Amino acid sequence: MRNLDYYFVIEKIVNFIRKKVKESKAKGVVLGVSGGIDSATASYLAVKSLGKEKVLGVIMPYYQNQEFEDAIFVCKNLDIDYKIISIKEIVNKFEEALGFEIDKITKGNLMVRSRMVILYGIANAKKYLVLGTSNKTEFLVGYFTKWGDGASDIAPLLDLYKTEVKEIAKILGVSEKIISKKPTAGLWEGQTDEDELGIEYDLLDKILYRLIDLKMKKKDIAKDLNIPLERIIYVENLIKRSKHKRNLPSFPKI
Amino acid sequence: MRNLDYYFVIEKIVNFIRKKVKESKAKGVVLGVSGGIDSATASYLAVKSLGKEKVLGVIMPYYQNQEFEDAIFVCKNLDIDYKIISIKEIVNKFEEALGFEIDKITKGNLMVRSRMVILYGIANAKKYLVLGTSNKTEFLVGYFTKWGDGASDIAPLLDLYKTEVKEIAKILGVSEKIISKKPTAGLWEGQTDEDELGIEYDLLDKILYRLIDLKMKKKDIAKDLNIPLERIIYVENLIKRSKHKRNLPSFPKI
Repeated sequence: MRNLDYYFVIEKIVNFIRKKVKESKAKGVVLGVSGGIDSATASYLAVKSLGKEKVLGVIMPYYQNQEFEDAIFVCKNLDIDYKIISIKEIVNKFEEALGFEIDKITKGNLMVRSRMVILYGIANAKKYLVLGTSNKTEFLVGYFTKWGDGASDIAPLLDLYKTEVKEIAKILGVSEKIISKKPTAGLWEGQTDEDELGIEYDLLDKILYRLIDLKMKKKDIAKDLNIPLERIIYVENLIKRSKHKRNLPSFPKI
Repeated sequence: MRNLDYYFVIEKIVNFIRKKVKESKAKGVVLGVSGGIDSATASYLAVKSLGKEKVLGVIMPYYQNQEFEDAIFVCKNLDIDYKIISIKEIVNKFEEALGFEIDKITKGNLMVRSRMVILYGIANAKKYLVLGTSNKTEFLVGYFTKWGDGASDIAPLLDLYKTEVKEIAKILGVSEKIISKKPTAGLWEGQTDEDELGIEYDLLDKILYRLIDLKMKKKDIAKDLNIPLERIIYVENLIKRSKHKRNLPSFPKI
């Protein structure tokens, strides 16, 4: 992987958050805290940048499960203000309004977009920025909801691979139980990112690093990592198919 | 203004929509129909590109007013399938969830983002693309909701000024009553775009065209249009202040 000085990376991100908040004359930042490592790390970075008085965590459960408990644990550990807003009734209203039986992916997207709407409602009213928690791994393979968790004002982790976020989390003092558990988007019971992605983060990051940063050829990556070429092609397809999610709406140039 | 061959522009947009739908293997397009000129024009272009069977209009009223009646009129005129989905209860749920009194701007944004969520719910389930209806004028001055009406898959009108959309609407056969009424985002009773923008579209487009396309100096524009320099500065500020809305979330390069 990249040879990063993580202390320097942290400083860079901290300065970035401070600068953006100042430039936009915002009074603070608001972010969704899920109980996972990304939002925990982003919270720690935000507090380091702005002080805890200027960071508001919003916990938006659909299910009352372990993730929900972990989200509260993160906010309590950091001693930041937090709000708990259940999205269950909102999502149910959307389902009702749509008027047809929705599949679990569509429902997951409704959940994630509802959270974005809530975060911006708070940000609008409080003159805060919405701090996004996406990382480089999920951004590249499109493992996020378009105009949902991908939609924020500033996204401090967006150029860090998932395995790099882990390293930063350790240095920042994020609790080991948050760092070491299996990542999940929490869209249905028992979901894990790696099952849904069809590949483990460690391997995925190694492939992405070689494809994107080193611009290595697919067959060289397969040889280097001692894995079948199909795995590299699989990842390349994830990147290609999600390209539209990394761009603003396309339009014809007149 | 720009010297455009509007027949050629229409052909270009029609080809663009067709190409994008084909490339993404979508089965059609879904768009929000508001009763205004932009969504009417976009609907006509979509039907011209794909045939009416592949275009679904969604009318998402908060108020039952003239705009709502006009939206139905547009869909009926075009003879496209349309759904009526009230967003009132959804927006109320969001308000309740936020738990504080919201101002009318925040509420307007809730309305617009709720519509986006509905359009994507339908698009997800039907394998359709979401067709955005933003035009170049509102895009440049930031007269849209971030991750709301600005969020779509394809935005065929995005490089056309409001006054140019009007010309195209006439050629396409959009009803005169839709073309000639005062534009409104419909976010509260009696709202008009021009009141809220603080400038009329005709003049705004003339200024934008000179600032953006011709890259003229502000004082030359003031002289050319015989208006006070302050008007140009006012528009320039609208552009500057809304820059973040025309970009994906910003992040520190690692």
